[in-house]
Amino acid sequence: MHNPQLTKDGKLAHLLTLEGLPASILTAILDTAAPFTEVGEREVKKLPLLRGKSVFNVFFENSTRTRTTFEIAAKRLSADVINLNVSTSSTSKGETLLDTVDNLCAMGADMFVMRHASSGAPYLLAQHLRATGRDHISVVNAGDGRHAHPTQGLLDMYTIRHYKKDFTNLTVAVVGDVLHSRVARSEIAALTTLGVPEVRVIGPKTLLPTDVERMGVRVFHDMREGLKGVDVVMMLRLQNERMQGALLPSSQEYFKVWGLTPEKLALAKPDAIVMHPGPMNRGVEIDSAVADGGNAVILPQVTFGIAVRMAVMSMLAGH
Amino acid sequence: MHNPQLTKDGKLAHLLTLEGLPASILTAILDTAAPFTEVGEREVKKLPLLRGKSVFNVFFENSTRTRTTFEIAAKRLSADVINLNVSTSSTSKGETLLDTVDNLCAMGADMFVMRHASSGAPYLLAQHLRATGRDHISVVNAGDGRHAHPTQGLLDMYTIRHYKKDFTNLTVAVVGDVLHSRVARSEIAALTTLGVPEVRVIGPKTLLPTDVERMGVRVFHDMREGLKGVDVVMMLRLQNERMQGALLPSSQEYFKVWGLTPEKLALAKPDAIVMHPGPMNRGVEIDSAVADGGNAVILPQVTFGIAVRMAVMSMLAGH
Amino acid sequence: MHNPQLTKDGKLAHLLTLEGLPASILTAILDTAAPFTEVGEREVKKLPLLRGKSVFNVFFENSTRTRTTFEIAAKRLSADVINLNVSTSSTSKGETLLDTVDNLCAMGADMFVMRHASSGAPYLLAQHLRATGRDHISVVNAGDGRHAHPTQGLLDMYTIRHYKKDFTNLTVAVVGDVLHSRVARSEIAALTTLGVPEVRVIGPKTLLPTDVERMGVRVFHDMREGLKGVDVVMMLRLQNERMQGALLPSSQEYFKVWGLTPEKLALAKPDAIVMHPGPMNRGVEIDSAVADGGNAVILPQVTFGIAVRMAVMSMLAGH
Repeated sequence: MHNPQLTKDGKLAHLLTLEGLPASILTAILDTAAPFTEVGEREVKKLPLLRGKSVFNVFFENSTRTRTTFEIAAKRLSADVINLNVSTSSTSKGETLLDTVDNLCAMGADMFVMRHASSGAPYLLAQHLRATGRDHISVVNAGDGRHAHPTQGLLDMYTIRHYKKDFTNLTVAVVGDVLHSRVARSEIAALTTLGVPEVRVIGPKTLLPTDVERMGVRVFHDMREGLKGVDVVMMLRLQNERMQGALLPSSQEYFKVWGLTPEKLALAKPDAIVMHPGPMNRGVEIDSAVADGGNAVILPQVTFGIAVRMAVMSMLAGH
Repeated sequence: MHNPQLTKDGKLAHLLTLEGLPASILTAILDTAAPFTEVGEREVKKLPLLRGKSVFNVFFENSTRTRTTFEIAAKRLSADVINLNVSTSSTSKGETLLDTVDNLCAMGADMFVMRHASSGAPYLLAQHLRATGRDHISVVNAGDGRHAHPTQGLLDMYTIRHYKKDFTNLTVAVVGDVLHSRVARSEIAALTTLGVPEVRVIGPKTLLPTDVERMGVRVFHDMREGLKGVDVVMMLRLQNERMQGALLPSSQEYFKVWGLTPEKLALAKPDAIVMHPGPMNRGVEIDSAVADGGNAVILPQVTFGIAVRMAVMSMLAGH
Repeated sequence: MHNPQLTKDGKLAHLLTLEGLPASILTAILDTAAPFTEVGEREVKKLPLLRGKSVFNVFFENSTRTRTTFEIAAKRLSADVINLNVSTSSTSKGETLLDTVDNLCAMGADMFVMRHASSGAPYLLAQHLRATGRDHISVVNAGDGRHAHPTQGLLDMYTIRHYKKDFTNLTVAVVGDVLHSRVARSEIAALTTLGVPEVRVIGPKTLLPTDVERMGVRVFHDMREGLKGVDVVMMLRLQNERMQGALLPSSQEYFKVWGLTPEKLALAKPDAIVMHPGPMNRGVEIDSAVADGGNAVILPQVTFGIAVRMAVMSMLAGH
């Protein structure tokens, strides 16, 4: 089957998920992002690559942080940005998702950045655009349900490449609540594609998917065991707001067993980097001493995130 | 009495309602809009006509869809757009509407796009601007109570002219909840002014104004009767949210009698166009087979709506 | 101790409060603002002084009016403006204020405009930026708790200078709810610094701070007494929403004793100006006959407010 994210000649048409994207495309995005990191340090932080284009941030789920990063990226590319918080809008008047989208297309949308609580919603949108002959409009998934958050996965890859240069000799650990994390799925897919020889998943059974082994990872239920000798520690946020009816550990208990402390981090390589997608729960999944310590690259992740989103948008716009 | 929407030399000063506007002005707006439809297809969707002007979208009633169309139109004209959702703002601190407006004028507003739940609020604003010697500031009514929604009426006229070329040989039917529809009033006024010889209104007595006959229309309480031989079918949205204390028909009952199905549409001319102001209630006032069918021009309406709003704004700015 | 608002060579680094700022800086801001008042009357209301800069309006407390004035000022300077209503965002997911700020810095913020319910929050932010070596990022306090609202104080000074030319021969009265007013503190500090020989505070004991005498003002508990012969009357808003558990006078009672009526105003000098920070409670602290009368300069205050905010932003950006 044809990959719905690629055009017939193999270019990026939409960014829906990192699963199934070839290494060449992932690498092309990271390469494109590299010069964009310098735009943020210029006197005038602007490039005209999307001038006169309309980017619609369509958020069916509120997320100020993610929406802001896309808004900044689009404005640096000189696009016109329209923010739509759709939870409070037409859909509440009974309009269907696809009718809403059809209307925004008719208003002249060039690109949709979409967040939705339902896994697969951005797919549905991309399919619909194709079925209705509107292939010139692109979709960027800004997080769908528990499924994917591909730009987060990409900025993580950018960060790893920035600090470690090469993926093919690394041991990377993903730690925590993998079950409820759309970030984790995107990260693991990208790490595997980019040739990381050992991806470890560390967490309690109750917070790992039952099919976690199939992802091609080594599973650890003992954090100290899992962190031994790793180059990269990717912490996950404890998604309290996504846990429904689960037997929730208290924050203190969770921290005791699964929180990243300096003492646990000492088991990793001395130059290991510590990542976190934010927002952090200090004292829950991560100790402040680690979050603010010399191994943390959490704020550079955010900075690279702007450049990576600029790269995705400019590639989708045909540059 | 002088028409408050026109300057002394007969140019557009405000757009408050289509009732009372001469055909020459309506036609001038449609003519101005025509080239703007091409801007949406350009590589750079920008014109500098409102560069450095401040357009305030002042919405006392939430409407993401309408606000977005004005925001896009203003940004395509290079204006600075300030969105104000006033329901959550100063007025809740006890400030009067006119004090709020005076403040926004003092901040340098060049144009107000205003939606308000009370019929006549934009009039009040225009009157106040005149009374206080601020004639250079324009008001666009983006919907006031049950009264008017002139840019919707204009985009409907643009759509009809686009598909039917000439108004003077048409039979046009407006179908549904005319009573609660500000769109219907604007449409009927414009159709009459532009010389449509037969405007029909089709709906149950309970959803038509008691003085509907005075609007110069033919009234039908039988949908099949009313649709016979028409060139244009303008469906209205069933305004559930505006019906207070009315004996509400169930959606299913309503659809059975007043929903536009392929079978009913077959009574109109074969090349009849079907319009809807959106958002649609599929299965209530319109069948999906019609909404997505070959006679529907519902999405072109939206596209033309951007161009028409650009035309109104640029004319108000003196172009 | 070094003033945290100034750079080592005495330039403005942040604008946190007017208390402690030297007269030379206050005057420099007013002088810089003067030519900006003309920008609002131009055909193209734009200057390129902040082009390509990212200004973050970070509002932990909702204030459409203040947020809008800063947004307009920043857009007139050609900045990219990002509005963040943080009450509905990451902090509700457990993130700390400084983590939120660190993230926004990592996204490339050049300037923060911050409103916060806690006194001192903008200080904390400025300190944190210094401590983390990010001195190139500026903070503008847009109101913190009961503490300060320096741009309001500055626009008031601009207004007084505009109408009265010289501060050193004036008698100025600040009237009403000083206790809950961050505006009053900023005003009194600036008036004193700029050399106003007599600043009066007029209000009931229950609405004045217990240490009000220490501010270097003359206190009056009789409004008629206090207004005698003044050049400037600065009315304060009755901050109903900030009074918690206080014995609230009814609006009518308050108006009777502390409302500014034409009869009370007649005790001031004939050419006295009347100011109000808005939004006004007509019939509570001010009579409509005064608010709309010939002595009121309440709307010019708003217009000057845009110019003053442009001046502060452009000076912070190094111009």
